[in-house]
Amino acid sequence: MANNMAGDKKNSGKGGAAEARAAAKAGARAEAKLVGDIADLDDYARWYQDVVYKADLADLSPVRGCMVIRPYGYALWENMQRLMDGRIKATGHENLYFPLFIPYSFLTKEAEHVEGFAPEVALVTRAGGEELEEPLVVRPTSETMIGYMYAQWVHSYRDLPLLYNQWSNVVRWEKRTRPFLRTTEFLWQEGHTVHRTEAEAEAETLLILREVYQDFMEKELALPVIAGLKSESEKFAGALRTYSLEAMMGDGKALQTATSHNLGQNFARGFDISFQDADGQQKIAWTTSWGASTRMIGGLIMAHGDANGLRMPPHVAPIQAIIVPIWRSDAEREAVAALTGEVETALRRAGVRVKSDWREERPGFKFNDWELRGVPVRVEIGPRDAAAGQVTLVPRTDRSAKETVARAGVAARVLALLEEIQRTLYDQALAFRLSRTYTAADYATFKALMADKAKLGFVEGWWCGDAACETAIKAETQATIRNLPIDRSERQAADSGTCVRCGQPATAWAVFAKAY
Amino acid sequence: MANNMAGDKKNSGKGGAAEARAAAKAGARAEAKLVGDIADLDDYARWYQDVVYKADLADLSPVRGCMVIRPYGYALWENMQRLMDGRIKATGHENLYFPLFIPYSFLTKEAEHVEGFAPEVALVTRAGGEELEEPLVVRPTSETMIGYMYAQWVHSYRDLPLLYNQWSNVVRWEKRTRPFLRTTEFLWQEGHTVHRTEAEAEAETLLILREVYQDFMEKELALPVIAGLKSESEKFAGALRTYSLEAMMGDGKALQTATSHNLGQNFARGFDISFQDADGQQKIAWTTSWGASTRMIGGLIMAHGDANGLRMPPHVAPIQAIIVPIWRSDAEREAVAALTGEVETALRRAGVRVKSDWREERPGFKFNDWELRGVPVRVEIGPRDAAAGQVTLVPRTDRSAKETVARAGVAARVLALLEEIQRTLYDQALAFRLSRTYTAADYATFKALMADKAKLGFVEGWWCGDAACETAIKAETQATIRNLPIDRSERQAADSGTCVRCGQPATAWAVFAKAY
Repeated sequence: MANNMAGDKKNSGKGGAAEARAAAKAGARAEAKLVGDIADLDDYARWYQDVVYKADLADLSPVRGCMVIRPYGYALWENMQRLMDGRIKATGHENLYFPLFIPYSFLTKEAEHVEGFAPEVALVTRAGGEELEEPLVVRPTSETMIGYMYAQWVHSYRDLPLLYNQWSNVVRWEKRTRPFLRTTEFLWQEGHTVHRTEAEAEAETLLILREVYQDFMEKELALPVIAGLKSESEKFAGALRTYSLEAMMGDGKALQTATSHNLGQNFARGFDISFQDADGQQKIAWTTSWGASTRMIGGLIMAHGDANGLRMPPHVAPIQAIIVPIWRSDAEREAVAALTGEVETALRRAGVRVKSDWREERPGFKFNDWELRGVPVRVEIGPRDAAAGQVTLVPRTDRSAKETVARAGVAARVLALLEEIQRTLYDQALAFRLSRTYTAADYATFKALMADKAKLGFVEGWWCGDAACETAIKAETQATIRNLPIDRSERQAADSGTCVRCGQPATAWAVFAKAY
Repeated sequence: MANNMAGDKKNSGKGGAAEARAAAKAGARAEAKLVGDIADLDDYARWYQDVVYKADLADLSPVRGCMVIRPYGYALWENMQRLMDGRIKATGHENLYFPLFIPYSFLTKEAEHVEGFAPEVALVTRAGGEELEEPLVVRPTSETMIGYMYAQWVHSYRDLPLLYNQWSNVVRWEKRTRPFLRTTEFLWQEGHTVHRTEAEAEAETLLILREVYQDFMEKELALPVIAGLKSESEKFAGALRTYSLEAMMGDGKALQTATSHNLGQNFARGFDISFQDADGQQKIAWTTSWGASTRMIGGLIMAHGDANGLRMPPHVAPIQAIIVPIWRSDAEREAVAALTGEVETALRRAGVRVKSDWREERPGFKFNDWELRGVPVRVEIGPRDAAAGQVTLVPRTDRSAKETVARAGVAARVLALLEEIQRTLYDQALAFRLSRTYTAADYATFKALMADKAKLGFVEGWWCGDAACETAIKAETQATIRNLPIDRSERQAADSGTCVRCGQPATAWAVFAKAY
């Protein structure tokens, strides 16, 4: 059972997790120090792993490509779930739950779908001590099972639309895995809807992309994203059209953070989801599906992290404010404790997720530790603060921006500061993306941009629409078309142009990038 | 892929689900009428299935023993999860997530555990197009995977206790399945903790049993339960001691609604969860595990349901109040609509989960429909109500207890009524249990009680403590020892006695019953 959670082969397969354990076994306290250097781009993968393991977001498991999501990482996921689930319900969807197992034959009912997923499924072949007549697929996604059930629930146009979502685990046997970014098992939500017309299905696909996913990413994860259409070769196996959101990571690569698929009538035909319309005619329905997963956590880490570790967006941070009391004597401790308790209570009452760190460690150790874990606001309370009835606030986004606040004003100021930090993270991520987004005058420039690690980013430009050209670009530069943006880019000067590679008349403006 | 969700073989394997579908296919509206008759005890299993399928709680799936939890059933589960999760966190536990798959060899590390679970596991033997070197078990429960991980997280007494919980799906290949009560895949939470001493582990086991599970069952599900110790033969495979909660269903049978296990050092030894104690000695830790599942939904249905269908406890009801507007003309509809909108808004603002039913059906159809679905309060608004500025409230627990309330007082009255209904359901369930709980003077009486379907219930009495006697009782009466109650029963007249079957000196007071 070899473990390959480490994606970068030149690094140790166990990375920071094993190191941290070895230190703990030796009785040493885990130092809040990253081995991977974010400034050294060759070391970026190691920096990422370090953050994941040392911030206690996840740990390696003994099963190939599967991780354990530790409490700090899971609390982050719970906050993300709550905020996304609210948007899913606010747009009229209900949650439900379908089985983990899918009969193998179901996969074959949509030709592209089976081609796309069959190579990476896990199969249950024995159960209850007997060989199964037909193997069961551990769901890699649930279009087929859900298509089968929807065919039995939909009879009349009055039954439509069906607007359902499920939160679940799924399994895809990936060759190279990395915690959160690509794991054999992952957690996600998958929405599945049925509509009367193509236009309704398309509207649903875009509603989810924009009002649920994009709104969530930008407002809660502080992650600016580009919404657009996937090319034919990059679309979901079985979809008519796939839309995606693409974010830029700290190394200039792209991460697809969510997808929304207009499935057309492909699955409805395969599973006979049909209905009697108002005109008395029996018609094939139109379906959509859309998903976002724990992969977003990887995106959050890489978009916001810095040399000191994580930077959690306040809206989803498991701990929004960490109080670090500072003392040297018992008398000082007592003075500090009174104010610490008072401030913690005031913050909790104000709705802030707060914690006090009373460990017997030096303050510098604690500062590093909570910076590594990305807590947005540090509240320092020392003997002088206690005497003066004040605290010192330090935002994770700017260590030098210390400020002193009187005890009575702490809660209000922390609430405001959390919103400032949320905005700062978004602004910084957007500014970084813009500074690393280019247009290429010609293909030589395009290739040079994709080859320069220090400048790596998104290249926008015209594309002829030919899959062969797309394939050639990938082979020659490792860059793929991330999507064809829905919103017109400021960089798109004209209404038409010629393909950045072949020079033929273009059909679309595209965002190219190397991607996770 | 034969489906055997139906547990009672004399009934149709598809029950109400297929009937409802056939009706829908034929264009007929689904009538809110139960086929199974709760008053006919031979028909109780069919009544149960009817309720599950016709109230749209769940549907059959094409995979053996797996169900689809439909939105109405899933919304119930979400409410249950929220209220139980709050108790789990309030008692100091954090959530996290472990992999779905467990290497087969892990199961064998605890001898009783592998014996108990090996016969009913589902095995992944192929993945990513290749045979696996070692099959992976789809988790039936996670003690082994978690034991492996905890061994790496626990080093010092300072690391203890570990107080973690996960919400997940699990798979057990059951021979006979019934929706919610026993399904191949089910949803649950499983808590897993590690402690420094046996006393701490025992305290945790009981804290969960009482403060989390019993408090949740009684206050939120309105389900009176008996907390007690399982006999050796009924304990969890690998546990030192198992405690359970037992509730009485409408047919007098028992349902185990949750279990809490003191695992002693069994799993800690198997996986080497050890720590350096304050005295410098390396010691084996003590662990616990505890779980409650979607099975509770089956218990809720059977404990509270009546001839008209479900009766949802208000605290967990997906819809707490259903407004049924009544009109015959457009003018009436308009008058009624204004008040309906106003009342719906007032109820929603008061925190009531409310919905208005504007379907074009006769009022009687709607009344039956929502009674079948168990909505606690019906709010009728007809033309005369609209004219008088009032509504009629009807509690699900007593159709004859209609009351008229002025518009301004609706929200306050509905909130109060919901609490009254919550209490009534608890009181009725408790009164029913007490009326069906017996003591048997001798074994002949015991056998007669267990043979009388119309009177079936719990029999309390002394037990010699011998597993052979327990086995004989089961063989002769189908009754099992549900548990040895922690709280002294009012029926236990003396401090000691003789075994109800063999007459030998008894070691414990026990609750006997036929069980699901």
